[in-house]
Amino acid sequence: MENEKPDLEWLFHPRSIAVIGSTRMDKGTQRVPHTIFFTVALRRMGYPGSLCVVSRSGASEATGEEKVYPSLLDIPGPVDHVIFCTPARAIPEILEDCVTKGVRSAGIFSSGFSESEDPEGKSLEQEVLRIARKGGIRIIGPNCMGLYCPESGLNFRADLPNNPGTTGMISQSGGMAIRTIFHGTEKGVGFSKVVSYGNESDLQGWEILDYLAQDEKTQLIVAYIEGTQDGRALARSLKEASRKKPVLVLKGGLSPEGNRAASSHTGSMAGSDPLWQAMLRQTKTHVALDVNELVDTAMTFYYLKRPAGRRMALMCISGGLIVNYTDVAVRHGFKIPELAPDTKKNLSEVINAPGTSFTNPIDMASLFFSNRIYAPMLGALDKDTNTDFILFIIAMEYVRGLEYQYKVSVQRIVEAFLGIIGRVDKPFVVVVPPSVDEESRLAVERAFLKAGIPTFLSMDGALRALSARIDDPREEAVGR
Amino acid sequence: MENEKPDLEWLFHPRSIAVIGSTRMDKGTQRVPHTIFFTVALRRMGYPGSLCVVSRSGASEATGEEKVYPSLLDIPGPVDHVIFCTPARAIPEILEDCVTKGVRSAGIFSSGFSESEDPEGKSLEQEVLRIARKGGIRIIGPNCMGLYCPESGLNFRADLPNNPGTTGMISQSGGMAIRTIFHGTEKGVGFSKVVSYGNESDLQGWEILDYLAQDEKTQLIVAYIEGTQDGRALARSLKEASRKKPVLVLKGGLSPEGNRAASSHTGSMAGSDPLWQAMLRQTKTHVALDVNELVDTAMTFYYLKRPAGRRMALMCISGGLIVNYTDVAVRHGFKIPELAPDTKKNLSEVINAPGTSFTNPIDMASLFFSNRIYAPMLGALDKDTNTDFILFIIAMEYVRGLEYQYKVSVQRIVEAFLGIIGRVDKPFVVVVPPSVDEESRLAVERAFLKAGIPTFLSMDGALRALSARIDDPREEAVGR
Repeated sequence: MENEKPDLEWLFHPRSIAVIGSTRMDKGTQRVPHTIFFTVALRRMGYPGSLCVVSRSGASEATGEEKVYPSLLDIPGPVDHVIFCTPARAIPEILEDCVTKGVRSAGIFSSGFSESEDPEGKSLEQEVLRIARKGGIRIIGPNCMGLYCPESGLNFRADLPNNPGTTGMISQSGGMAIRTIFHGTEKGVGFSKVVSYGNESDLQGWEILDYLAQDEKTQLIVAYIEGTQDGRALARSLKEASRKKPVLVLKGGLSPEGNRAASSHTGSMAGSDPLWQAMLRQTKTHVALDVNELVDTAMTFYYLKRPAGRRMALMCISGGLIVNYTDVAVRHGFKIPELAPDTKKNLSEVINAPGTSFTNPIDMASLFFSNRIYAPMLGALDKDTNTDFILFIIAMEYVRGLEYQYKVSVQRIVEAFLGIIGRVDKPFVVVVPPSVDEESRLAVERAFLKAGIPTFLSMDGALRALSARIDDPREEAVGR
Repeated sequence: MENEKPDLEWLFHPRSIAVIGSTRMDKGTQRVPHTIFFTVALRRMGYPGSLCVVSRSGASEATGEEKVYPSLLDIPGPVDHVIFCTPARAIPEILEDCVTKGVRSAGIFSSGFSESEDPEGKSLEQEVLRIARKGGIRIIGPNCMGLYCPESGLNFRADLPNNPGTTGMISQSGGMAIRTIFHGTEKGVGFSKVVSYGNESDLQGWEILDYLAQDEKTQLIVAYIEGTQDGRALARSLKEASRKKPVLVLKGGLSPEGNRAASSHTGSMAGSDPLWQAMLRQTKTHVALDVNELVDTAMTFYYLKRPAGRRMALMCISGGLIVNYTDVAVRHGFKIPELAPDTKKNLSEVINAPGTSFTNPIDMASLFFSNRIYAPMLGALDKDTNTDFILFIIAMEYVRGLEYQYKVSVQRIVEAFLGIIGRVDKPFVVVVPPSVDEESRLAVERAFLKAGIPTFLSMDGALRALSARIDDPREEAVGR
């Protein structure tokens, strides 16, 4: 049996949006009202349609250029999408106006529904659903951030990045959506569409998954899921989506305690851990344990074509670190085999430095600072038939020491390195773990990321992400 | 049977030091010679004794204020300690001069001994040992950085920190010693004495351990060990040391591949993984998997008195993150129990904000930005009888969002928080995982660390370190 294939394309292209709620600054805290929060977010993302505010309180010092109407029915043209920031209790009445006005979709930011301890919340959610179904309005949420789509100017927070990418996301938590977009962007991963869907009263996670699975703008799908109303439908959608595209899942509420927290967060009853584990395994999705792992894995799919296997050429400039990280790699099931005889021969012909041996792992020692050797060295490793990918560890304390000894800046070294790496065909990743000079570490990490090289904060993180990448049969990177 | 108790105190208080080796800049690479590297390091650390250079090449543009002698025997006064930066082959002859001169200890930075592929290296190491024993000279290394002791001005790298602390370290790898000192310092952990002992030809790791175990300046011991010549002696020393002080061990070369890398690094034959695992378990040391974990654990012992158990009060300002981190905590064997009825009552009396419930985990939501509630909130959690410690997660993307909404800077919030935390008796730790604005994240992390609050990059890292801290019976923090 297949899920229905709802066409949700229209959801991401509303001709006009009205944000509904108070425009008044909070007198005590001087808090900017959420109504304005959303309006500014859409304006900054360059939303091209018509945008207005609906508020009984009228314009205020917080409202910007958008026109403020006392009622939805006062707006002259059509309204395709509304965003509710009113108190929950006010929504049913205004939703009747939406039906009259022909609104097609509503994102409900307001909380106080089935996730709340108040029993009234549940019946209020049912009432909203009843009106929406009657009027043919799709509800996103309630208790969610709604839609983010840089390409069509949709946005739920003013400071989110406006560069589109190829990652689609469904998230029951607005916070996890925001966190993933920000952290992903820091790691060079861009997003096509993100839907924060909260309590999932009407629009279901699996429906958005089905849409993203066939969306041409989306090549990779990430999901933060707390629960579902229909486990079979979700399983079918995950399975179908992961047949078409890599799907990475972070499941919230696997433990009974986490489940309890999820229940007061999005009203989800998350179900038992073994059941979810089995389902995620069967659907061939990749499971991440936290947002860092989710983003590290997304970055790996985004930038890296699939390494043919788990045999790595491991390069480092610190002897002790390389011993330890070899242990870590072996613990994760990776191999660090001898280099092929041809590779050793090629390396010894071009490089002749004392204290550097061409065993694998490769202790580069001070060779790191002789940039004339990068090209022959990486060239030889690129052709090595005994290894599937190259992992380069940069130890910032060595970089600083060698900067002092050789008077060469790490920026110049990284630039020289990046000048060559484009010619290397073999998958190549970098690990720059924290040690000293966090600001320099960030600069090095960002330079590699900017060049499209997956760059990790920890060996552990790199190997988890690489495992997921290698286990997935798809050959090509999805981000470029 | 007990190990001998060698008194090594004298090793850290040499009256005079001679650094032996070339003073010439490398013509091709313009590299600063190691001889100068060590001299500058000692000078910058404020070494109070007499310091000179021994070099057949005489003074150069690289030498500073130190006098350069052509031979050790030309130095007028006594020389207690020498540092060898000459080629390995030159050492036996000069070591004979050391015997004549009455030198008491020699650190050999030079490599090319038993760790090298050249069979001559092994016999050279034996020859050095024979001369040293004859003359009563203790050899540190070869193939090591030697001694770091801020209090007595000993140092092996110019940019290492000069603020003493209570952590002692033995490390077979100079790189791992440097990495641990730097990363430890970033995390607020200072060092009393660090010995990088390389190939361990004469001075044994276990001897230094015995010394650190009874050293009054040392309250915590960390060790990076690749191998040993005497497993029984090392086991006895680890056991005895960990009876007196917390001992954290990072073992390099647990895997056969890591072992191979260790062998070309310090000449160590590391032995089998299960044997080491059993030995480390029996000696009741805490085992870390990498330097980050080693430092995170050290930080926890340094600053945190022992939580009475694994029950945490978990505070966060992001609902999704708190669900996920609750799962992570449960996976690590921690509990997030309901707060005691009294706590809930106290909290609901002082705090009355919509959407905030006093279940545990505690979703602070926007309360994070109402600093008047910190004092009553932390006061109530401090007295809670159902929890053993407080873990506070700061989500930087929320901080940035709330900064926008409330126009309050995170610095002011952190300051207000720190103003109260001194009155909280219950162990308190912070996790600030990477998301957006790495520079702001660093500033927040550093502010908490400066106040002596263990602050972690990941929930996983925090929980590993806390596990070690809770498993150790010692009650008091060792760093203050």
